[in-house]
Amino acid sequence: MGTVVYDRVALIGLGLIAGSMSLAMRKAGLAGEIVGHARSAETRDIAREIGLVDRITETAAEAVQDADLIVLAVPVGVMGAVAAEIAPHLKPGATVTDVGSVKQAVIEAVSPHIPAGVHFIPGHPLAGTEHSGPRSGFATLFRNRWWLLTPVGGSEPAAVERLAMLIRTMGANVEEMDAAHHDLVLAVTSHTPHLIAYTMVGVADHLKRITESEVIKYSAAGFRDFTRIAASDPTMWRDVFLQNKDAVLDILGRFTEELFVLQRAIRMGDGAHLHDYFTRTRAIRRGIIEAGQDTAAPDFGRSLTEPPGKS
Amino acid sequence: MGTVVYDRVALIGLGLIAGSMSLAMRKAGLAGEIVGHARSAETRDIAREIGLVDRITETAAEAVQDADLIVLAVPVGVMGAVAAEIAPHLKPGATVTDVGSVKQAVIEAVSPHIPAGVHFIPGHPLAGTEHSGPRSGFATLFRNRWWLLTPVGGSEPAAVERLAMLIRTMGANVEEMDAAHHDLVLAVTSHTPHLIAYTMVGVADHLKRITESEVIKYSAAGFRDFTRIAASDPTMWRDVFLQNKDAVLDILGRFTEELFVLQRAIRMGDGAHLHDYFTRTRAIRRGIIEAGQDTAAPDFGRSLTEPPGKS
Repeated sequence: MGTVVYDRVALIGLGLIAGSMSLAMRKAGLAGEIVGHARSAETRDIAREIGLVDRITETAAEAVQDADLIVLAVPVGVMGAVAAEIAPHLKPGATVTDVGSVKQAVIEAVSPHIPAGVHFIPGHPLAGTEHSGPRSGFATLFRNRWWLLTPVGGSEPAAVERLAMLIRTMGANVEEMDAAHHDLVLAVTSHTPHLIAYTMVGVADHLKRITESEVIKYSAAGFRDFTRIAASDPTMWRDVFLQNKDAVLDILGRFTEELFVLQRAIRMGDGAHLHDYFTRTRAIRRGIIEAGQDTAAPDFGRSLTEPPGKS
Repeated sequence: MGTVVYDRVALIGLGLIAGSMSLAMRKAGLAGEIVGHARSAETRDIAREIGLVDRITETAAEAVQDADLIVLAVPVGVMGAVAAEIAPHLKPGATVTDVGSVKQAVIEAVSPHIPAGVHFIPGHPLAGTEHSGPRSGFATLFRNRWWLLTPVGGSEPAAVERLAMLIRTMGANVEEMDAAHHDLVLAVTSHTPHLIAYTMVGVADHLKRITESEVIKYSAAGFRDFTRIAASDPTMWRDVFLQNKDAVLDILGRFTEELFVLQRAIRMGDGAHLHDYFTRTRAIRRGIIEAGQDTAAPDFGRSLTEPPGKS
């Protein structure tokens, strides 16, 4: 076992991220005790049944008692309410972090409730799957993924370093970033792509000339990756769009402009424009593979159970 | 080895699909001799070097000499020209098929050149990866994938059944479909998703406030699947959009309408609308997993080299 970084960790919310954190911290021996709370009695029951954390409490206030690290792992729309509820029960010197996909709105909602002497260090692990709930976590979720921290004025460097050490030991790479910049970057790399995928899947669902079974049968041709994205947790994503409204609307506007230019090229038969555009986007993919964020394995259109092999 | 279905097969074009067909036919012993031709001398050299087919010819006309099955595996924009070139050299009783992603335009371009006594059976394997070229093929590419045939008036049932047998033995599932319906279904499940992915990757590339290295570093959060799609062969996709113009423009119009409704819900803060929409799209994903076209493994945001495991 490794070195204990926090004697007691409280996880508020017991979904994919909190569950994976518990399993990763336990595996590496990073916490003395892991306490958990979820608002739903069903989630608490499942977490208890599978032993996801060391102890389950009925209230968030109880969970944070004497905790050295408190992780807010709830949809971003309820971060403020949870912060208000736990604030009177926080131990002086404790660190509060969150794992929300939006940072400015969470900081605005949570900061006012944090008492003096408690460190608030907003965070966002860029890790996840299309599954959610207490059974969806696994210890290796964060391995080789980025975990962005957006410290606010007054985040004590020693407290930030301690949290970063915990995160690194769970396998992730830590990077600090300004909250506004975070929200713009994520609008491009995550939020808008999710909205677009949701939209495309919705279009397919509405088309009466194509049966649902045809859409499903022939999904391997490109659509499949969209449906995977569009299967993500509806509550989490509703809140992300509402809480990162400005950046998402900005990027959506640019997306629509760009799409109209390509649409016009198709209508006009401007093959040279299309070919140039597709050649440039191909180069970006190469950059991602070189940066180690994906493999060059020909996954597209294939299933994980049948890794392709030269033969 | 299995039963030889065609004594001599000619592959015109030696990219991902033709290469995979050669490897799959060879593995199953389905062809007496596999002859190949590619327009580019470099492609022919590579194919010769890696022994992709049994014999390489300098011209398409030479390749189809005495061939019992001719496979047009070139971008859909040049199918007509290739058909015109090979037509005088086709053996009576031979079957010509193609593997283009668009069917109506290919039928219009190719049919007029097919001599009486030769069977033309248009086809489309729904299989591929984001890689292209003579080195990208592998024998299992078609396993458990759909291969759509869109026979034209006068496609002889016995000739269709013979081709279907070859395809099934390469591991794919055969289904017959009307060419116009094919083009609409594919516009939804493949062509429009590709255009959208290309667009989103292009938007990211243009944003000056975000560095390219940031886009690449943080791509795991949803954008990565888009970049994989947007890395597909530019020439093939240019032709697909130009040749399936009507269906793609129809679906793009619906997509934009739908996107504007969701965009308005974000602007207005209509969380209920967003949540309902995202809940419906999640159900479609479940259908795809149940149909065996993907696994429920939590691949999203993960790399193939690290399959997630509960621990």
